[in-house]
Amino acid sequence: MITKQIYFAGNFQSTETVVEVKNPFTNQVFAKTFLAGTKELNSAIEAALKVEKEMKFLPSFKKYEILKFIASELEKNKQYFAEIISQEAAKPMVYALGEVARSIQTFTIASEEAKRLPKEYISLDWTAAGSGKEGLVKYYPLGLIAGIAPFNFPLNLAVHKIAPAIAAGNPIILKPSRNTPLSTLCLAEIIDKSELPKGAVSILPMDRESGNQLVTDERFKLISFTGSPQVGWKMKQQAGKKRVLLELGGNAGVIVSDTANLENAVNKTIVGAFAYSGQVCIHAQRIYVHKNVFDEFSEKFVERAKNLRTGNPMSSETEISAMIDENNAKRVEQWVNEAVADGAKILCGGKRNDTFYEPTVLTRTHNKMKVCSLEIFGPVVTLEPFNNFEQAVDYVNESDYGLQTGVFTNKLDEINFAFDHLEVGGVIINDVPTFRVDNMPYGGVKNSGFGREGVKYSIIEMMEPKLLVISK
Amino acid sequence: MITKQIYFAGNFQSTETVVEVKNPFTNQVFAKTFLAGTKELNSAIEAALKVEKEMKFLPSFKKYEILKFIASELEKNKQYFAEIISQEAAKPMVYALGEVARSIQTFTIASEEAKRLPKEYISLDWTAAGSGKEGLVKYYPLGLIAGIAPFNFPLNLAVHKIAPAIAAGNPIILKPSRNTPLSTLCLAEIIDKSELPKGAVSILPMDRESGNQLVTDERFKLISFTGSPQVGWKMKQQAGKKRVLLELGGNAGVIVSDTANLENAVNKTIVGAFAYSGQVCIHAQRIYVHKNVFDEFSEKFVERAKNLRTGNPMSSETEISAMIDENNAKRVEQWVNEAVADGAKILCGGKRNDTFYEPTVLTRTHNKMKVCSLEIFGPVVTLEPFNNFEQAVDYVNESDYGLQTGVFTNKLDEINFAFDHLEVGGVIINDVPTFRVDNMPYGGVKNSGFGREGVKYSIIEMMEPKLLVISK
Amino acid sequence: MITKQIYFAGNFQSTETVVEVKNPFTNQVFAKTFLAGTKELNSAIEAALKVEKEMKFLPSFKKYEILKFIASELEKNKQYFAEIISQEAAKPMVYALGEVARSIQTFTIASEEAKRLPKEYISLDWTAAGSGKEGLVKYYPLGLIAGIAPFNFPLNLAVHKIAPAIAAGNPIILKPSRNTPLSTLCLAEIIDKSELPKGAVSILPMDRESGNQLVTDERFKLISFTGSPQVGWKMKQQAGKKRVLLELGGNAGVIVSDTANLENAVNKTIVGAFAYSGQVCIHAQRIYVHKNVFDEFSEKFVERAKNLRTGNPMSSETEISAMIDENNAKRVEQWVNEAVADGAKILCGGKRNDTFYEPTVLTRTHNKMKVCSLEIFGPVVTLEPFNNFEQAVDYVNESDYGLQTGVFTNKLDEINFAFDHLEVGGVIINDVPTFRVDNMPYGGVKNSGFGREGVKYSIIEMMEPKLLVISK
Amino acid sequence: MITKQIYFAGNFQSTETVVEVKNPFTNQVFAKTFLAGTKELNSAIEAALKVEKEMKFLPSFKKYEILKFIASELEKNKQYFAEIISQEAAKPMVYALGEVARSIQTFTIASEEAKRLPKEYISLDWTAAGSGKEGLVKYYPLGLIAGIAPFNFPLNLAVHKIAPAIAAGNPIILKPSRNTPLSTLCLAEIIDKSELPKGAVSILPMDRESGNQLVTDERFKLISFTGSPQVGWKMKQQAGKKRVLLELGGNAGVIVSDTANLENAVNKTIVGAFAYSGQVCIHAQRIYVHKNVFDEFSEKFVERAKNLRTGNPMSSETEISAMIDENNAKRVEQWVNEAVADGAKILCGGKRNDTFYEPTVLTRTHNKMKVCSLEIFGPVVTLEPFNNFEQAVDYVNESDYGLQTGVFTNKLDEINFAFDHLEVGGVIINDVPTFRVDNMPYGGVKNSGFGREGVKYSIIEMMEPKLLVISK
Repeated sequence: MITKQIYFAGNFQSTETVVEVKNPFTNQVFAKTFLAGTKELNSAIEAALKVEKEMKFLPSFKKYEILKFIASELEKNKQYFAEIISQEAAKPMVYALGEVARSIQTFTIASEEAKRLPKEYISLDWTAAGSGKEGLVKYYPLGLIAGIAPFNFPLNLAVHKIAPAIAAGNPIILKPSRNTPLSTLCLAEIIDKSELPKGAVSILPMDRESGNQLVTDERFKLISFTGSPQVGWKMKQQAGKKRVLLELGGNAGVIVSDTANLENAVNKTIVGAFAYSGQVCIHAQRIYVHKNVFDEFSEKFVERAKNLRTGNPMSSETEISAMIDENNAKRVEQWVNEAVADGAKILCGGKRNDTFYEPTVLTRTHNKMKVCSLEIFGPVVTLEPFNNFEQAVDYVNESDYGLQTGVFTNKLDEINFAFDHLEVGGVIINDVPTFRVDNMPYGGVKNSGFGREGVKYSIIEMMEPKLLVISK
Repeated sequence: MITKQIYFAGNFQSTETVVEVKNPFTNQVFAKTFLAGTKELNSAIEAALKVEKEMKFLPSFKKYEILKFIASELEKNKQYFAEIISQEAAKPMVYALGEVARSIQTFTIASEEAKRLPKEYISLDWTAAGSGKEGLVKYYPLGLIAGIAPFNFPLNLAVHKIAPAIAAGNPIILKPSRNTPLSTLCLAEIIDKSELPKGAVSILPMDRESGNQLVTDERFKLISFTGSPQVGWKMKQQAGKKRVLLELGGNAGVIVSDTANLENAVNKTIVGAFAYSGQVCIHAQRIYVHKNVFDEFSEKFVERAKNLRTGNPMSSETEISAMIDENNAKRVEQWVNEAVADGAKILCGGKRNDTFYEPTVLTRTHNKMKVCSLEIFGPVVTLEPFNNFEQAVDYVNESDYGLQTGVFTNKLDEINFAFDHLEVGGVIINDVPTFRVDNMPYGGVKNSGFGREGVKYSIIEMMEPKLLVISK
Repeated sequence: MITKQIYFAGNFQSTETVVEVKNPFTNQVFAKTFLAGTKELNSAIEAALKVEKEMKFLPSFKKYEILKFIASELEKNKQYFAEIISQEAAKPMVYALGEVARSIQTFTIASEEAKRLPKEYISLDWTAAGSGKEGLVKYYPLGLIAGIAPFNFPLNLAVHKIAPAIAAGNPIILKPSRNTPLSTLCLAEIIDKSELPKGAVSILPMDRESGNQLVTDERFKLISFTGSPQVGWKMKQQAGKKRVLLELGGNAGVIVSDTANLENAVNKTIVGAFAYSGQVCIHAQRIYVHKNVFDEFSEKFVERAKNLRTGNPMSSETEISAMIDENNAKRVEQWVNEAVADGAKILCGGKRNDTFYEPTVLTRTHNKMKVCSLEIFGPVVTLEPFNNFEQAVDYVNESDYGLQTGVFTNKLDEINFAFDHLEVGGVIINDVPTFRVDNMPYGGVKNSGFGREGVKYSIIEMMEPKLLVISK
Repeated sequence: MITKQIYFAGNFQSTETVVEVKNPFTNQVFAKTFLAGTKELNSAIEAALKVEKEMKFLPSFKKYEILKFIASELEKNKQYFAEIISQEAAKPMVYALGEVARSIQTFTIASEEAKRLPKEYISLDWTAAGSGKEGLVKYYPLGLIAGIAPFNFPLNLAVHKIAPAIAAGNPIILKPSRNTPLSTLCLAEIIDKSELPKGAVSILPMDRESGNQLVTDERFKLISFTGSPQVGWKMKQQAGKKRVLLELGGNAGVIVSDTANLENAVNKTIVGAFAYSGQVCIHAQRIYVHKNVFDEFSEKFVERAKNLRTGNPMSSETEISAMIDENNAKRVEQWVNEAVADGAKILCGGKRNDTFYEPTVLTRTHNKMKVCSLEIFGPVVTLEPFNNFEQAVDYVNESDYGLQTGVFTNKLDEINFAFDHLEVGGVIINDVPTFRVDNMPYGGVKNSGFGREGVKYSIIEMMEPKLLVISK
């Protein structure tokens, strides 16, 4: 049984409330940690505020060294971190290793961007009133950041808040998911060994009341939340004077044009659809295929879906494993059953076994079904034909969400049309909506989010411009 | 008696509710216009949404031509516009003409920035996962904008919302102050003659209920508000999913170091203190002077304050005239009287005559007095000595506000210290906090605001980035 | 008979050497001007150096006003300028008017860019050695510029040197072509009326010796030359310590893929091939068409070429007129005859009449023929089929030149391949290589040039970065 | 006796011509290597051209890995590299270690910049002619680079050519100084172990004829030279069509204002004056001190100069050691003697002992003396008073050179004046002209150079922009 203390005010500490961490695949508790309450949170806040000024004036080479140190320690321990993630989240090792690699990359990018914080030098003599004047715009750290991370990428989505906060010169208090707190607590051990001022980063699993304080307490200058739309949009209302950055869900679409390379489209879409059982914000949920190639695509895709290797996430062979908990597996089961009752046809999958849900492909669905209109967050995709490209774009846009869309095509006019008309944060040509690298701007429109992450973009959100006007 | 119809859905129209516009100096009604209610607002919204797509795809040369046309028509009619502003706002002609010149400049800048909207072309092959991929980031217009403008710069602060909205490709509905609706309605006549799609800009004085709908209606994607902190921060809570841009008030500080050119410091500070009776967000309210030069500065400053030319704002000689209404003049009177009762000493001024309040200089004030801690928005300044530069910076920072600070000094180390430590949006070296040119980033921290205006900066706030990932 | 004095040292002056200007269409002298010798050139240089400092410190609003004034005076006189160009260069009015419009645009862009000169604000604390240091990079004007403009765009290619020089804050001495000096001398009259310091711009037709001094005299800090490769590359050797910007010729290629919109391809290519009788650096000289659509393209193209309206350039109907002089027409005749003797087939045209050469289409050409390998600078194109896209790119690259290439296609992979592999300065998708707008970076590789024009790019070439390191 | 083969075409090879490398301090040959002739150079060129395409298409993560690998191997061997430098160049270990640290930093910056190569995404629809068009500007590697490095920073000034070449995707052939070829040949051993394509980097000490071929051979697309002005400017004439980047010498000035922190000014200037016996391009050669503080500065400075620790460069205690060879020491001796004969006064130093020349301070010098007007490249400084700041700036500008100037002052107006009026590439406030960090733009004006180094700036020089115009 692993025991991890929580990390705040520069120390690892226990509290009175124990949290048990289950392996969703074995359904066994394999670790425990602790829950922070108001007292611990306030202690973390006070410690963070104490080093705010020191953080603000860290020279860039120092921030670079700290962030590189963290990246290199993660690199040394990547197998260990992947195993922790695999256990707490039932994530197949191949994807868990991928997540750790991305976290290393996120810290690396942040280390480099710490030396390249935005700065502007501008002319102000555009009128006689500004004659002899020039302006410098320097971006200063905003102040204390609150971060809330989800279970599905327990390490890297937390890192996407921690690394930019450090690069910008801000202290941060991060709340991991209660289901998957271990990997960030392991990260805390690395951070603690770095030269970062003590108290600048705290990692606190916490109860609901304290979680709410992250939103309402005016000592936080920004809250960065990755999670569900319902929770996220409510936060925006309660956030007071602070900034809000929301990375919420989606029901991402894929469009396969008749000029696409079908082999490539199938290979990529299978991964986009079923990686980590679809528990991914940019999971490829709705696939629209040109009618001329629909049958061919469908046949190949279903064939591949049927042959995904299931099993223990800790095995390097496993491609798909348990969902995060039985409640979610049951929810997926129910949505699929509702769809079938309403006329949908199951091309493969459709069965649940405890926390495991089969890779499932549906067709003959319509937009009112939950499997289409809501975020399924499970290993289920819908497959529908379209007549022409404009129609496919309309299908994708008929959604309250707008994260990313994958478009498989070789035609310039389709690419231009997609870019101009898809209502999303990102249009991915010849790859799945699930594509993300850590330096790209990432985020959704409509119900899917507010603001952008991606290291450089997060850093800007976490800084405040200040103008210096020099008069000659 | 001038009568101006309100402008929405591409037409000038009357409503059942008449608004009378008073000249604050003569206290006479000299014009009337109309109030929009829910019906008119919804009509404006629907008309705006109808042209949203057309606005989005306007080529940049077309937006340039429209914005240049507006600028050049303003230029042709600048005397007329200045007279309207002078009457509705009791603004001395010299400042009213200045405001029109700045509005022309704001439209000119917007016309040029319409051709230079942000676009990024980025590498994505920082890891093997992104091999063969590149990204384009294009900023698309956000959608319908709501703008709320204050009475004190009735034209240019509205233009700072309208011009960037057009440059970005957004429709906008603007609510002017009920006290000063005429200059923007005159602007509407120019806009109506331009090639802008009808309905893209509406100018609507409105009742409280409709004003509130600007905040809560989800069809608006951003609300840009210039006004009081109390109203502004409440809006942020009620704004739902939309973005919020707040330009609120302040009690701006000035620091005069012993290395300053005193002549220059006095000349500039007199204007920063008393221009438009201090009814300016970046009015120089609190002046801190190094003890070695305090007496000399004080003597010269008071001498100048006593000799400001008062009178009818329509006269080109007048330097200071009536305040916007008697309520505000009484409020200023009361705050000054409270301060005096609490130990402050009046160096000059201190008397009210109807809507006119004398240019007033106070000393021996302290931070708990309203004349220090709140935004006076009247022709009153406090003058206090300091011992060393760090102390002066502390004095300025002891405030809930943080817009801009003027620092008169010739020392590099003081400039560096001021830039790093003043908690404001802008530090103005050798000029007053009241300095603003229309291409600079402008906005406050702490209670003074949220986000930045200044044409290019407003445009970015009014656009949404969209990423296109190209795979080879 | 028009007489224009030459413009230097802030005055219009005559010299002892008269230059007669012929209308190439009528073969009549219709104007005269004067030639500068060493004496006049040195006088121009001294006058320019006298105002170098004043130019350097012109505030941006003043440069903006000067450049806008010139643009607006050109606008008022655009018909007059077009007629001058049409007469001196035998340019059909439709193209002459287009050239004037572009010159207005070039000055307009320069006026805007004068306010946006490059400035950088950078971190220097990437190592402990730079702790507490920051850098500002400001671009200062380089100093006196020499410009040499060709006959084919006598106004706009001179303006592409003059306007950026002013925007950057440099004085400039410009040598127009001896064939076509009038339009720039007319421009000088406008410049003289502006508020530009006298002597900052001189327009001097000059003899060979003086022309050579532009290259060798070390008081010039940059020479910007548009003309032939032989002359240009020799200049680079003789230029001493100054910078060199060369815009030389080419034999631009066009690729028409089988996925192209053929109608569009024919329409655009006809203009690219025959506008101003092909006397254009980016004239579409070599057209490669996919074998599947070669016959259809060829038929339509030749049909259109045969029906171009010939005649007096002063007529608004005329599409093609005389070449610049008989020598050039004879040269073209000879190259075509050589090609035919070597196996080429004439699809249309092929005849000369004095200075007029027919729009001519050749096929069955090969790379050793002068019509392929050299810059024809006449109304002649070659039309050849290709088997696959890679081959077409190879064909285009088999040239000593590399200016621009037009690629008509709707396929992403072809676009990617073309961008990566075409050895040119610009790849124009779905338009001709002849496409140029005045804000784009323009220039060639291989023998076609050295450096880039396009207002912002020229400005950078004409400025010197200077670093200021601030230590805290 | 160390023997190092030279590195070309991906192999370490010997040639018939042996080069002996002396330790200038011991005057003993301690190593030998080989000289390349035409044959070896051509072999290197051909091998480089063979991998040009592979280099061009290396993904950024691969270039990053290669450059980081080199940096980390240098880190592991930094003591060894420092000892090599110390021996071949007689550089005191403290400075040799500093040079290695800077080379590591230069490779690190290059690894990061390889992921951030310049890319532009621009609007082209500024006129109707560009409607529906957008442009991408991508910078492609220029092709084969020639680099020539000097003896004084045998490693880092070579690295400033090699690292950007790799980052940009270019092959490079580097010629080290014949006096100090060892450190770069050791670097070659690291490069050879990296994943860089074989032949992409060659390190070739070479004879005069081959050195000349680097300049004249058109297969090189850029020559980057650091060395003397006489050689450099001649190269520019002979360079044919290639680009030329010249980092030449200077006689850098220092200005000490009466507002300067004198302690700091003395501390920094001593290092700027005598580090590596002044054999540094930005050696602080001419020091101008405000008359009010001249005596105090002078006294402290001379005191410090007298007490510099001389000795074996291999000792960690040594501050100043032998010059590169006796010829140079004799030259310095002669210039000082000439100055003294012409009225200069020696405040300390002035004696030579074989290759060692004492730290020498002169005063009562004038501008015609070689110690003022030429680059001394030895441990000699002149110390002169000035009356006012403008005069000091004039003194500095009275030189054919213009690299960097150090300005010690705390006054804003002096900083502004210095930035606007000093004719140099860099103005360093409160530090010596000798200040350089590897990410800053570095280079001179007037006779001191042509173009800028500093990793990002070199990269741009080594790339060619290519425009892609997309039409909708």
